Amino acid sequence: MSAIINNIEIIKAKSTKINDVDFDDLKFGSVFSDHMLVCNYENGKWQAPKVTPYEPITLDPSAKIFHYGQSIFEGMKAYKDENENVWLFRPLDNFKRLNISAKRLAIPELPENYFMEGLKTLLEVDSDWIPKNEGSSLYIRPFIFASGNGFHASPADAYKFIICTAPSGAYFSGKVKVLIEEKYSRSANGGVGFAKAGGNYAGQFYPTQLAIEKGYQQVIWTDDNTHEYIEEAGAMNIFVRINDTLITGPTSDRILDGITRKSIIQLAEAENIPVEVRKISVKEVVEAAKNGSLKEMFGAGTAAVISPISGFGFKDEDFDIPELEETYASFLKKRITDIQTNKTEDPFGWRYEVK
Amino acid sequence: MSAIINNIEIIKAKSTKINDVDFDDLKFGSVFSDHMLVCNYENGKWQAPKVTPYEPITLDPSAKIFHYGQSIFEGMKAYKDENENVWLFRPLDNFKRLNISAKRLAIPELPENYFMEGLKTLLEVDSDWIPKNEGSSLYIRPFIFASGNGFHASPADAYKFIICTAPSGAYFSGKVKVLIEEKYSRSANGGVGFAKAGGNYAGQFYPTQLAIEKGYQQVIWTDDNTHEYIEEAGAMNIFVRINDTLITGPTSDRILDGITRKSIIQLAEAENIPVEVRKISVKEVVEAAKNGSLKEMFGAGTAAVISPISGFGFKDEDFDIPELEETYASFLKKRITDIQTNKTEDPFGWRYEVK
Repeated sequence: MSAIINNIEIIKAKSTKINDVDFDDLKFGSVFSDHMLVCNYENGKWQAPKVTPYEPITLDPSAKIFHYGQSIFEGMKAYKDENENVWLFRPLDNFKRLNISAKRLAIPELPENYFMEGLKTLLEVDSDWIPKNEGSSLYIRPFIFASGNGFHASPADAYKFIICTAPSGAYFSGKVKVLIEEKYSRSANGGVGFAKAGGNYAGQFYPTQLAIEKGYQQVIWTDDNTHEYIEEAGAMNIFVRINDTLITGPTSDRILDGITRKSIIQLAEAENIPVEVRKISVKEVVEAAKNGSLKEMFGAGTAAVISPISGFGFKDEDFDIPELEETYASFLKKRITDIQTNKTEDPFGWRYEVK
Repeated sequence: MSAIINNIEIIKAKSTKINDVDFDDLKFGSVFSDHMLVCNYENGKWQAPKVTPYEPITLDPSAKIFHYGQSIFEGMKAYKDENENVWLFRPLDNFKRLNISAKRLAIPELPENYFMEGLKTLLEVDSDWIPKNEGSSLYIRPFIFASGNGFHASPADAYKFIICTAPSGAYFSGKVKVLIEEKYSRSANGGVGFAKAGGNYAGQFYPTQLAIEKGYQQVIWTDDNTHEYIEEAGAMNIFVRINDTLITGPTSDRILDGITRKSIIQLAEAENIPVEVRKISVKEVVEAAKNGSLKEMFGAGTAAVISPISGFGFKDEDFDIPELEETYASFLKKRITDIQTNKTEDPFGWRYEVK
């Protein structure tokens, strides 16, 4: 079956997998919807995107993705409200950041309409896959990788832009304990840390495994030169609350400009929560934990939304963060998810209806 | 057709592509031999390797290689001497480095016999593809990537180890002009710069494109913190000759431990060329260029062997390196390629016959 929606050709899957999915017990990003969006870059330009069945990708063994790591991605979520209307959260910010990543990785930038019309068409075709359950959503993964061939270490001449979707539950279950890293690093000054580049993630896995063996779930990265300042947690930006002030580090060429991060800053300011965007030293956090002024610590990102941190390790010492009854984390998480899921007004214009 | 050599199953290609190849006009890594070695990691272990026809790879769109950059590789060369004997150069060093890279990228380490027996079997099957022409060789590309599925940012549960080969000519044609980088960086302290990880290469493409636009072919990376010290050139380690002393920077967790690099150090020492392995400041190189004591600069790596540098740019200034009649670069290149191609004695035990 073939059709055209929003000028985009649609090749429908022969059958649906949706009846095999237990929407009451969704993991994160492990079950995939029936369709995907595919758009190829060849002969010097992005060709028209298509919706196709979710199906395997075939590549030459010399395709540069296997050798030189030219890949970038985004993470987004679609929500369905009680009237079956479908909502995205600041999708143009994801599109813009995808192109910022593309430029740094020498990947050709994508036209806005291919991204937005392609995404909307895909969501229309797979609308049944968007969960309505509280805490669940359709996780959306746009990505671009080098599909061109050859062993010369230079940018590829062909790329694939694909959007896949996966109905998903929570990224972390329960509270998270983190290790503040003092040896390994995530990114260099003048490097690609600000980009959502595949290579930024692979480099974190081994140090994270070491942290998991010590009883932590995530690593908090510090600057590679002194390890004295907190950067981000890899899959999340980091916020700390000292007394009543919410603090997060400034973005830089080492740190991802998180969309959840900047939304939280804006939300907190609108709610008259004192917010500071400035460098956070590990010393300051350790001292605050010792003298009791460290009230909260949480991660923020699309996948995890807001993920409270229950304690941290640093130099073989463990610090618990006492549980408050009313936290910024839960207050801000409710504010942001209420906006995302159309349960409240959206004074910021962040919500984007798919229709 | 199926056969067994060295305990490895061989599935032969139905026909050969070799008659389409002009062995007198070989580019670098763009024509591929008839077969490849394939070895899958699944169910917690590396399965038996097989030689198969060189053929496309099929992956799920959620395969982690597309999203999280878990990939590593090696570069090697096979040479055929006038008696049709086939030689490798220090292949066990490539094997060991592959596993060093694997560990840092949270990829399961590969058994030595799968690598060595697999490689030897592949070379036996595709022996006709090894060029005999001066300056040409069979470029060998062993690589491992994450083939397991899912959007969770964690190590994959399945991997593919593949060896492809490509009859190849020179990597660079002619002399190379380089730009000493003062803004962008290749790697972080505590990062993955010492590993042959795909992501290390993608991050270099954009700054290299900027350098190419300014008339250079390659970037010389400097440390990400001060940009005061020379690191490596991405596809090559860097040597400078000041007066009669050959100098190269020490390896670190930011710099690849190049096999050509360490062979050159040993060769130079054996030939009574004064060699120093120590930090090289950009200032020192600029001053030496100005006062005439900078006699040579060259890159060293498997693909390029030894690649003379004719000049460098730094902070909008250009420095030419005058052409000497007798250079360390050409002397050492002849010494190393004579050993590689079995034209001379090998006092170091580097050469490895494939039989």
